[in-house]
Amino acid sequence: MSHYPKSPLMGQMMQQPLLISSLIQHADRHFGGNEIVSRRVEGDIHRYTYRECHQRARQLASALQALGVGMGDRVGTLAWNGYRHLELYYAISGSGAVNHTINPRLHPDQVAYIINHAEDGCLFFDLTFLHLVESVAARCPTIKRYVAMTDRAHMPAGARIPGLLCYEELIAQNADDFRWPVFDENAAATLCYTSGTTGNPKGVLYSHRSTVLHTYASCMPDALNISGREVVLPAVPMFHVNAWGIPYSAPLTGAKLVFPGPALDGKSLHALFEQEKVTFSAGVPTVWHGLLEYVEQNQLAFTSFRRALVGGSACPPEMMKVFRTRYGVELVHSWGMTEMSPLGTVCHLQHHHLHLPREAQEAILRRQGHVIYGVDVRIVDDGGSELPWDGKTCGNLQVRGHWVASGYFRTADKAALDDGWFVTGDVATIDVEGYIQITDRSKDVIKSGGEWIGSIDLENIAMAHPAVKQAACIGVFHPKWDERPLLVVVRKPDGSVTRDELLAHYNGKIAKWWTPDDVVFVDALPVGATGKILKNEIRDQLRHYTLPGA
Amino acid sequence: MSHYPKSPLMGQMMQQPLLISSLIQHADRHFGGNEIVSRRVEGDIHRYTYRECHQRARQLASALQALGVGMGDRVGTLAWNGYRHLELYYAISGSGAVNHTINPRLHPDQVAYIINHAEDGCLFFDLTFLHLVESVAARCPTIKRYVAMTDRAHMPAGARIPGLLCYEELIAQNADDFRWPVFDENAAATLCYTSGTTGNPKGVLYSHRSTVLHTYASCMPDALNISGREVVLPAVPMFHVNAWGIPYSAPLTGAKLVFPGPALDGKSLHALFEQEKVTFSAGVPTVWHGLLEYVEQNQLAFTSFRRALVGGSACPPEMMKVFRTRYGVELVHSWGMTEMSPLGTVCHLQHHHLHLPREAQEAILRRQGHVIYGVDVRIVDDGGSELPWDGKTCGNLQVRGHWVASGYFRTADKAALDDGWFVTGDVATIDVEGYIQITDRSKDVIKSGGEWIGSIDLENIAMAHPAVKQAACIGVFHPKWDERPLLVVVRKPDGSVTRDELLAHYNGKIAKWWTPDDVVFVDALPVGATGKILKNEIRDQLRHYTLPGA
Repeated sequence: MSHYPKSPLMGQMMQQPLLISSLIQHADRHFGGNEIVSRRVEGDIHRYTYRECHQRARQLASALQALGVGMGDRVGTLAWNGYRHLELYYAISGSGAVNHTINPRLHPDQVAYIINHAEDGCLFFDLTFLHLVESVAARCPTIKRYVAMTDRAHMPAGARIPGLLCYEELIAQNADDFRWPVFDENAAATLCYTSGTTGNPKGVLYSHRSTVLHTYASCMPDALNISGREVVLPAVPMFHVNAWGIPYSAPLTGAKLVFPGPALDGKSLHALFEQEKVTFSAGVPTVWHGLLEYVEQNQLAFTSFRRALVGGSACPPEMMKVFRTRYGVELVHSWGMTEMSPLGTVCHLQHHHLHLPREAQEAILRRQGHVIYGVDVRIVDDGGSELPWDGKTCGNLQVRGHWVASGYFRTADKAALDDGWFVTGDVATIDVEGYIQITDRSKDVIKSGGEWIGSIDLENIAMAHPAVKQAACIGVFHPKWDERPLLVVVRKPDGSVTRDELLAHYNGKIAKWWTPDDVVFVDALPVGATGKILKNEIRDQLRHYTLPGA
Repeated sequence: MSHYPKSPLMGQMMQQPLLISSLIQHADRHFGGNEIVSRRVEGDIHRYTYRECHQRARQLASALQALGVGMGDRVGTLAWNGYRHLELYYAISGSGAVNHTINPRLHPDQVAYIINHAEDGCLFFDLTFLHLVESVAARCPTIKRYVAMTDRAHMPAGARIPGLLCYEELIAQNADDFRWPVFDENAAATLCYTSGTTGNPKGVLYSHRSTVLHTYASCMPDALNISGREVVLPAVPMFHVNAWGIPYSAPLTGAKLVFPGPALDGKSLHALFEQEKVTFSAGVPTVWHGLLEYVEQNQLAFTSFRRALVGGSACPPEMMKVFRTRYGVELVHSWGMTEMSPLGTVCHLQHHHLHLPREAQEAILRRQGHVIYGVDVRIVDDGGSELPWDGKTCGNLQVRGHWVASGYFRTADKAALDDGWFVTGDVATIDVEGYIQITDRSKDVIKSGGEWIGSIDLENIAMAHPAVKQAACIGVFHPKWDERPLLVVVRKPDGSVTRDELLAHYNGKIAKWWTPDDVVFVDALPVGATGKILKNEIRDQLRHYTLPGA
């Protein structure tokens, strides 16, 4: 922080940089015997301890050094949530290199673009992604070394990858006498590309300092509330915004860590939750939807699962209610972005809410929540003027803070900053108590007669109808109002509902003029690499659609 | 952190220093309506909000500026826990000056020494301390301005203090347009002198960075576990190690804050706990002892109080048990020091302890606890070699971390550092899971035939006897064993127990050779300014005592 004015009197406290390596060192020294359990790509369950994880991470760091990976060099990973990926998190960042997690759900062209843009020198991958790697290898000249994250027995025969190395052999060939280097806490630590629906992906380059501060903040009671009494299963992938920081927060607290590998379907998750006594999880609404469906169809329950953070997109309130009332599981609403490491807000009650009737509490808990200390938020109009916090006025949501991006890797693109605030592209209200409700993406907001209609509210109401499986609301051209809302719906397999029934379903739930003008039923909605519905594509598919009476 | 090696690649995250002013700004913006309630020196109850606190803190910062207080200048406070003291915390540190909290329980000579050593330029004081200030003012030439923390109506008539200012007038005379300056996070923020039992007090100079990191850490579930659902009453004084950080952690979380003022007796505390629905508190064992006595004598209960952090000295396990089983209040054991801001360890169970029988859990919870991420611990022998973590081997406890002192204010005294570790002066065991048990102060440990006997265990066993009010154990000369333990006991008013009964009470509770050789009954034990028993004085009082048979 040397570019800020110094005081004539500096504090006399010990100086040590905030480094990611200190997290796994802490876990080893103070929670060394606590467990890390992984469902492997190979199919079986692997278990070991934080102490063994730290030992292997140091062996791996020696291996990276031997492979010529230096400070600031990018190392790519294409991997599920598992212990080997965790070892890479610490070995790469801990040794001063940059852990570049790549989303394997992206199109191979985008994967190749990202690898070339990042100039990854090594690529580590789970066997699942062998064909993906084979399909991009010839286009990725910067990669000098490919490593399959498995043992010799499982190495693929005849892989079309030059000089493919075996992860377990790399570990075995190196001693664990590696000592984590000490360097400037503002050094780059990890790199994650946004999966923007338009344009090329953009790289967010996190620092050690931003990551450690985010880790402290994420453990707090009003954030993820992670203690050593939790068994944590990150259902959000480690290839996407560092699994919301859980690979860092669990070691900080000594919580038992359970990795689901590639098996994120309801059946596999439920089995692992029960077997390992998982208490807390985190993931996107789609995951909880799948889990709920499985549990309902098979009339199952949860014996240890009590809380899950839900984010990535708005969680249908109906699902939150079912999880809580039928299964005793609180889905905790949160909001963030790749550019925010990702945590911005988490929704919890405050002391003076505890005496409110449950219904009023639920109205609060449906919002995206309250900002965590370390980031700040504001809403502004299109002209950049700050808007009031009245719970009604919609505005462009902007953020700033210790773990917010100030730019993108290797682009001059500073457009996302407005007077030092990051422009999130979300539209939200903030109420008088600081609770945020995301009403839309700014590119999706429906502008009807000069007023803004938030599509998320309209979608949530549709989703609460028993016959509706998925819903998306888009603005379509209207000669008088400029735009009017159109509801696009996927019915449940056994669901039956008409256009008029669905529109009548809005009565009394929302201002009359917010009610969609029409409904279009479709078989499926287009979904992107991180599970988000792609409204651009819906708009494109319906470009010839005309509103009734328009 | 510019003196650490830079990486060729730095992260691209927003840069903002960790400053104390950001805590009260956050509380204002995001928890502006949440309450701060104070029992005033004037006797009544005062209540306002974080927003008003922030406004008055800015008015006060303007006033400090007008009084000529600059960056790095020391401003002294002699005050109880209350809203005005909180305003000073933020106004002084936030504006770049150094908030020097002075312990009014020290001897006036020590108070004068501290003020002169710190070169305080202003002194703010509660009316309670008028006579103390009058008695030292003539000896404190650096102080240019004295401010009585009250309104005009309560200003003392005929105070023998030159140019005495009125706090409320200072506030009223200044606008709230003060903008918190942005400066290096390593700047000095607060100053607290240790109340060492020997030698002159030594100043610990905390930085903004160390304080903010300590605040993050202290809120975590395995530390103080402070959320916005708590009502927090710091029973530990703000003049002693910043009330264990609660004036910072409560604003971070939006917790309702309740200040007891000077009234720390059982009756006053119980009334305030009930009236304000306090859920969490923090204080030294003496405070909880007084509260328990009052509640028991009056057959009362607690309707909201559920948890309290206990530290400063070891908490008798018997009292922890009574609070839990009779009143549903968990006393959470912790350990720290002025030189550690103060938090080092807090005692909580981990996931794999939850299935243990309650007795085994209690055995864990009686220890001082587990280190918080951000600090590290080790035990070494007198030669400086690290000792094993087996729960049995006693060693000198050393610490290091972000909020540990690297030296003392204006002394060249680096003696307390051993290879970068701070020598705590405590003797402890650490078990295989990292739980620390303080067995003694290194100067109090009893060295019998080359082995170390911890006096705290011996005192706890004595305290568990129903007739014992207080106990201290000291080593006294023995011709064969060098030292042997002597128990010094204060009986309860209605307690009756003989020497032989008390020694028999040790049977089966401890190794036979640890049993004290003798018991001396006294009327009272000498106590220091922070409530600790002064063993030096006991040893001095008993210097002519000879062991039976020695």
